[in-house]
Amino acid sequence: MFNKILIANRGEIALRIIRTCREMGIKTVAVYSTADRESLHVRFADEAVCIGPPQSSESYLSIPRIMAAVEITNADAVHPGYGFLAENADFAEVCLEYGIKFIGPTPEQIRKMGDKITAKETMIAAQVPVVPGSGGLLQDVPAGKKQAKEVGYPIILKATAGGGGKGMRIVWKEEDFESAWNTARMEAKASFSNDGIYMEKYIEEPRHIEFQIVGDQYGKVIHLSERDCSIQRRHQKLVEECPSPFMTDELREKMGNAAVKAGEAIKYEGVGTIEFLVDKYRNFYFMEMNTRIQVEHPVTEEVIDFDLIKEQIKIAAGEPITGGNRYPQMHAMECRINAEDPNFDFRPSPGKITSFHSSKGHGVRVDTHVYAGYTIPPYYDSMIAKLICRARTREECIRKMERALDEFIIEGPKTTVSFHQKLMKDENFRKGDFNTSFLNDFNFKD
Amino acid sequence: MFNKILIANRGEIALRIIRTCREMGIKTVAVYSTADRESLHVRFADEAVCIGPPQSSESYLSIPRIMAAVEITNADAVHPGYGFLAENADFAEVCLEYGIKFIGPTPEQIRKMGDKITAKETMIAAQVPVVPGSGGLLQDVPAGKKQAKEVGYPIILKATAGGGGKGMRIVWKEEDFESAWNTARMEAKASFSNDGIYMEKYIEEPRHIEFQIVGDQYGKVIHLSERDCSIQRRHQKLVEECPSPFMTDELREKMGNAAVKAGEAIKYEGVGTIEFLVDKYRNFYFMEMNTRIQVEHPVTEEVIDFDLIKEQIKIAAGEPITGGNRYPQMHAMECRINAEDPNFDFRPSPGKITSFHSSKGHGVRVDTHVYAGYTIPPYYDSMIAKLICRARTREECIRKMERALDEFIIEGPKTTVSFHQKLMKDENFRKGDFNTSFLNDFNFKD
Repeated sequence: MFNKILIANRGEIALRIIRTCREMGIKTVAVYSTADRESLHVRFADEAVCIGPPQSSESYLSIPRIMAAVEITNADAVHPGYGFLAENADFAEVCLEYGIKFIGPTPEQIRKMGDKITAKETMIAAQVPVVPGSGGLLQDVPAGKKQAKEVGYPIILKATAGGGGKGMRIVWKEEDFESAWNTARMEAKASFSNDGIYMEKYIEEPRHIEFQIVGDQYGKVIHLSERDCSIQRRHQKLVEECPSPFMTDELREKMGNAAVKAGEAIKYEGVGTIEFLVDKYRNFYFMEMNTRIQVEHPVTEEVIDFDLIKEQIKIAAGEPITGGNRYPQMHAMECRINAEDPNFDFRPSPGKITSFHSSKGHGVRVDTHVYAGYTIPPYYDSMIAKLICRARTREECIRKMERALDEFIIEGPKTTVSFHQKLMKDENFRKGDFNTSFLNDFNFKD
Repeated sequence: MFNKILIANRGEIALRIIRTCREMGIKTVAVYSTADRESLHVRFADEAVCIGPPQSSESYLSIPRIMAAVEITNADAVHPGYGFLAENADFAEVCLEYGIKFIGPTPEQIRKMGDKITAKETMIAAQVPVVPGSGGLLQDVPAGKKQAKEVGYPIILKATAGGGGKGMRIVWKEEDFESAWNTARMEAKASFSNDGIYMEKYIEEPRHIEFQIVGDQYGKVIHLSERDCSIQRRHQKLVEECPSPFMTDELREKMGNAAVKAGEAIKYEGVGTIEFLVDKYRNFYFMEMNTRIQVEHPVTEEVIDFDLIKEQIKIAAGEPITGGNRYPQMHAMECRINAEDPNFDFRPSPGKITSFHSSKGHGVRVDTHVYAGYTIPPYYDSMIAKLICRARTREECIRKMERALDEFIIEGPKTTVSFHQKLMKDENFRKGDFNTSFLNDFNFKD
């Protein structure tokens, strides 16, 4: 087992990793920028090294500075957390060269899954469903119609140079193909001076459902069931839960198998997440793989009583996985508490926290690096706490979350607590009736 | 279900009850003395009523004042918590007369178990083992020897007027009986002017192991396994855990059955605890029954994923119990954090908390009514927080507790955190090798 782990990250995830290291009897080194002197991750680590100014490029993203900190503290492993260097294959490679264990997958695995085209090809080879489509530009209307028939309606036409919805048309049936084609081409031409169009299966009422997988150094891969992350605002996850209210035992079996196959295909080492889109007919399609621990990992920890960080460290140290796939025994939900103002388009609200009381009690977990008197720096992402509740049923879990949100007192910056309180009261959310566009029409204001 | 519950208590247990009520959609009324204005239980309740000055007799123990608060707030049930009026049959009776539901057993059940002699007789009738003994004063040496033979050596002679170990003698074999008898009588006479002596089986290396039971209004009683509360200082519990490191599946079955029989014998309604002494040979003896929720109830909640307060409220509302006995799925441990100075004989250390950071993270629960800036009043018991950890094994649980204790920051008053840190490092404690006299020789000082 490792003697000393350097945590190449900040905030709540750094603290999260320190906690598990302490429980495992492993010494910890925190690194911090000058803006993070007062963070709890610095206070609770055994050692702490300042690695530079607030700008991430000169501190948390600087491989030379982090490697220097490794060297002076004599750490024998690095945990990258999430974000920053967590999916940087070059960093993983540098660690390898220096004989320092990078706690995560190999550089090759990171590269393979980091490149969208290679990732998709790997999945197809492993018989994991991906979103069907033309794979290239469409020639003309007859060719397009032929492919649309193969893929199956509805399909979506997209501009190859596109973005922001321009040059994009959903086609529900063949007789509408030609006019949609013409409009999409015209729009694409006007917007991007490029009228190249390709086609994909249109995913109706898509849910973002991801599977947590774990692989060891000996080729064994298991899954730890799903997390539903469909509650997103502009592709930012705000709430995650397990089980997904949309899940069935049969679908979990199918998706879980696919996720394990995906991991096995690359002999994945460590914890990772296979993200899927699931349509309203419960067809599912591989979206991407995250080759690191995720923000929402506590949701899984709470439903299966499992320490994912500990597992990560054990795997990196060469321990084999014991046991098979794990299934949820409880319901858990996570609300991300961000220092953002829901009344003003979620604009960041850094600054000093004048009063802080975190929710407590039965079934409530709070992961946070902040406290009363702490000043949230403006340089990093605005998440200041994760509030996780667990209960026997989804209904009980939502009620517990409401109670815990009411009890969460943060004075000073604006936070997303009020948004979550509103969401928990939403009838469709309570019914589990939502998909990734749920928040598009949500009234965020008080 | 109830509409509004008045909580006739203070501190962490009042807050604990409020949390569950909120999750159940039940309104809450806090009562408080003038010394408790700033407690969180007052802040988080829907309504709060000041019921008098700090002295408990004029506030938390005053039945008329509490009933007046019930009347003005129109509450339809009262939760007594633990301590104060929780085992006061008269209070339960007054509630009954006023048509207010007392959340707990009937006045008769409280009376029956509150009187030690009646409780013991009830248990004997229900075939629950009790500590064998003379049951009355011993006549002379021959009569004493005859009874000792029946009970089986070792036995203990006790002064009927006794206390503090005076007039008490352990007798290991018959030939020592007479001299022990003479010394005990002399001491008793000298200390209490009363040389009456009775006899009990001497329990070797006793452990305090209690069983949580739940009974509904329809005669069904189940048990929720044990809690080991052997870590005591002067009969005050300091640490509780489940499973007991001394427990075997066979013993749990036997003790659980006895606990259920005990509950069934009185058609017990509500949650209650059957306390046993267990000797080194794993013989167990009924000690007493607590007809209320206990301080250490979270230990059980964490190992079986069960909300005991919710169960209490549901049973009081007439709901039947569903399912059978429950067995620990995890290991949980509770450390009582008291505002007391372990370096000075645990003398109380009330006063202002200048800095407060409660432990957090995976598997850690803190139940507390205090916060930074709160002033601990000198009038009540000194417990300011309960730190509860859960993990898969006892070893992991102890490591988590160590981590969580290291992370618990309370500045201002002295606390028992340092004692718990020392205890967790104790080799015999770690091995699970302890009984109720374990702390007699413990070096509490830093």
